[in-house]
Amino acid sequence: MEISSNGKPIYFNLGFNPLLNLIEKNNYSQVFVLVDEHTSELCLPILRDGLGDFQNYSIIETQAGEQHKTIDFCIGIWNTLLDFNADRKSLLINLGGGVVTDMGGFIAATFKRGIDFVNIPTTLLSQVDASVGGKTGIDLDENKNMIGTFSIPEAVFIESEFLETLPKREILSGFAEIIKHGLIADDVLFDQILNSNLESIHPDLIIKSVTIKNKIVEHDPKEKGLRKILNFGHTIGHAIETYSLQNDPQPLNHGEAIVVGMLCEAYISTVVNKLTPEELNIIVDFLLKIYPKYSLEENAFDQILLTLAYDKKNENHQLMFSLLNRIGDCDFNINVSNELIIESLNFYQDLK
Amino acid sequence: MEISSNGKPIYFNLGFNPLLNLIEKNNYSQVFVLVDEHTSELCLPILRDGLGDFQNYSIIETQAGEQHKTIDFCIGIWNTLLDFNADRKSLLINLGGGVVTDMGGFIAATFKRGIDFVNIPTTLLSQVDASVGGKTGIDLDENKNMIGTFSIPEAVFIESEFLETLPKREILSGFAEIIKHGLIADDVLFDQILNSNLESIHPDLIIKSVTIKNKIVEHDPKEKGLRKILNFGHTIGHAIETYSLQNDPQPLNHGEAIVVGMLCEAYISTVVNKLTPEELNIIVDFLLKIYPKYSLEENAFDQILLTLAYDKKNENHQLMFSLLNRIGDCDFNINVSNELIIESLNFYQDLK
Ligand SMILES: NC(=O)c1ccc[n+]([C@@H]2O[C@H](COP(=O)([O-])OP(=O)(O)OC[C@H]3O[C@@H](n4cnc5c(N)ncnc54)[C@H](O)[C@@H]3O)[C@@H](O)[C@H]2O)c1
Ligand SMILES: NC(=O)c1ccc[n+]([C@@H]2O[C@H](COP(=O)([O-])OP(=O)(O)OC[C@H]3O[C@@H](n4cnc5c(N)ncnc54)[C@H](O)[C@@H]3O)[C@@H](O)[C@H]2O)c1
Ligand SMILES: [Zn+2]
Ligand SMILES: [Zn+2]
Repeated sequence: MEISSNGKPIYFNLGFNPLLNLIEKNNYSQVFVLVDEHTSELCLPILRDGLGDFQNYSIIETQAGEQHKTIDFCIGIWNTLLDFNADRKSLLINLGGGVVTDMGGFIAATFKRGIDFVNIPTTLLSQVDASVGGKTGIDLDENKNMIGTFSIPEAVFIESEFLETLPKREILSGFAEIIKHGLIADDVLFDQILNSNLESIHPDLIIKSVTIKNKIVEHDPKEKGLRKILNFGHTIGHAIETYSLQNDPQPLNHGEAIVVGMLCEAYISTVVNKLTPEELNIIVDFLLKIYPKYSLEENAFDQILLTLAYDKKNENHQLMFSLLNRIGDCDFNINVSNELIIESLNFYQDLK
Repeated sequence: MEISSNGKPIYFNLGFNPLLNLIEKNNYSQVFVLVDEHTSELCLPILRDGLGDFQNYSIIETQAGEQHKTIDFCIGIWNTLLDFNADRKSLLINLGGGVVTDMGGFIAATFKRGIDFVNIPTTLLSQVDASVGGKTGIDLDENKNMIGTFSIPEAVFIESEFLETLPKREILSGFAEIIKHGLIADDVLFDQILNSNLESIHPDLIIKSVTIKNKIVEHDPKEKGLRKILNFGHTIGHAIETYSLQNDPQPLNHGEAIVVGMLCEAYISTVVNKLTPEELNIIVDFLLKIYPKYSLEENAFDQILLTLAYDKKNENHQLMFSLLNRIGDCDFNINVSNELIIESLNFYQDLK
């Protein structure tokens, strides 16, 4: 299966022959593969097998984890490319989760004013979310994704085989974005999700999820309108994520925080938009079945509102919600009062 | 006078009303002006006057000089933008020479994945060269312009008034690029250059020079072919610049090095291309009249060849010269032997 995103191919479970063809066609002077210490061990062997006789590439290894998605690591990797005498006809293959594909994309987009890159996302999250839309980026201290570009990889390879070594908690984190894609755009996908087997994510869920995101971002590449529906669950979810990072010894990961956010924003959708209480119930039951309930401490509400206020200041003094109309349809640019935000947090709090 | 470059306007000596219109039209959330310590003192007052009643912008000051065109300064400025809560609807105005416009362009192109920017080049070099083509960039240690993007400013403002405070040596450095533009593309411009007054560069020379570069880069935005003629004088010139930086207490500036390079490459053009000895004489006489003669030490030749070999390794093992056909016409992708390069250096050496 293959789809086209911004004019470039995304391949699903087709192996790496198209990558060999791309390398041959473009006659790259050198090929580099960026990995982190986990994908070096767990994913590189799969890529190596897939490339058969072509083994003429250099490996660059970075450290795993969001805390290393920084300009310092970029500088190190830019310098490594220079040490290798990489020129403008070089190719960078990013093999890893969203940290590797985001940072590697940024490195490629800026090295000698841009070299080609290919993404091979190896986590469920990066396969269903970071794989389309052309966002590259790094963090600046605690500010996530502050520096980056919109740059399209020459190709994306999504291979289910990589997921076999992915810890359950990482699977669930990516699964949250699949759920989001069903909720905002596709009720049939959402039905499939309700009946899916988490032990082995069906490739169909991934393909549909990517296809949905792709349609949305192609419609609105620079996030001026429609693309905002991808933020469903992320307004409150992001504030919860920040809160958890600052307060919990074992903070929520992105997907877990977004699940809390989706529940709050689904609640708000029943109050100010057309989501029915029955639909809300279906969402609540399903999410609580597969995700642990997070307990919000006393002081959490204030901190969450503070984070939302800060985000608002950074967004031209407008903090707009994307809210469900029904399962499979979403509106954007909806104003929500602080009272209703607090009400939704209480709603989440009281869930059993 | 106004021309269009990559769909965006370049204004010549029209003042800053078009900037006011742009700011109003785009309804920017905040406006920032990046300056260095010299342009803060010498150029900001002119801009301030030109903006009349609109004084609602924040100044960000960086340090003057190529040695500060670094990622460290970018990090500082990105953080300053964050401190100001700059969002994606912010505008960055780069007011300065090529260091400020190159680095400011890169900062804007990558801050929150790209905010609008405007360039107001205040040196002759940045007016006639850095003002078109969309190259942004910074240096990585001693590697010049290694990191950057191709990004087009929303507008460029070229105002002769800024040149009034520019030191003579900086004027001459920029003038070398005007000469290059005449040599590679316009014999009429070259005649005007021969008869020009260096005390006050005629705006017509600047406009013609920018128009020539603009035509070339629009024809070949990503430097695949024709754009290479802009490298006339720069292959050897760049090696001379590097040599001088490493060996001289008072190194040549870019223009001065390029003048040596143009003389060597004009010589090579008479040997392997169709430039006549008479034309070569005209070029030699004129350049030696206005630029100091540089004396190449004994050991210089070897170092220069080493730099050229290094550049070659970085350019996919091909080091191609752009050579004159005649005054006003240039070919590119011409192979030149080491022997001939040495011959050209000896030719320069022997000039009186
Ligand atoms: N560009 C976009 O549009 C976009 C969209 C969503 C998220 N993101 C970014 O993605 C990042 C999060 O992505 P992520 O969750 O993939 O993070 P990640 O890259 O940190 O991967 C999570 C962990 O899984 C490990 N891992 C990767 N592949 C594995 C495999 N096959 N088997 C075992 N372990 C493996 C990694 O080494 C890491 O320790 C964030 O930085 C986020 O900002 C970007
Ligand atoms: N982007 C491009 O296409 C392109 C093309 C050519 C050169 N460049 C870059 O441009 C840089 C060189 O440009 P530059 O020579 O303008 O360097 P610069 O910015 O360092 O300016 C030279 C000096 O003049 C000072 N100055 C600037 N305007 C002045 C004014 N009006 N009056 C008095 N002093 C003033 C500056 O503070 C500095 O000290 C290099 O980094 C080079 O890589 C870029
Ligand atoms: Zn998300
Ligand atoms: Zn130059």
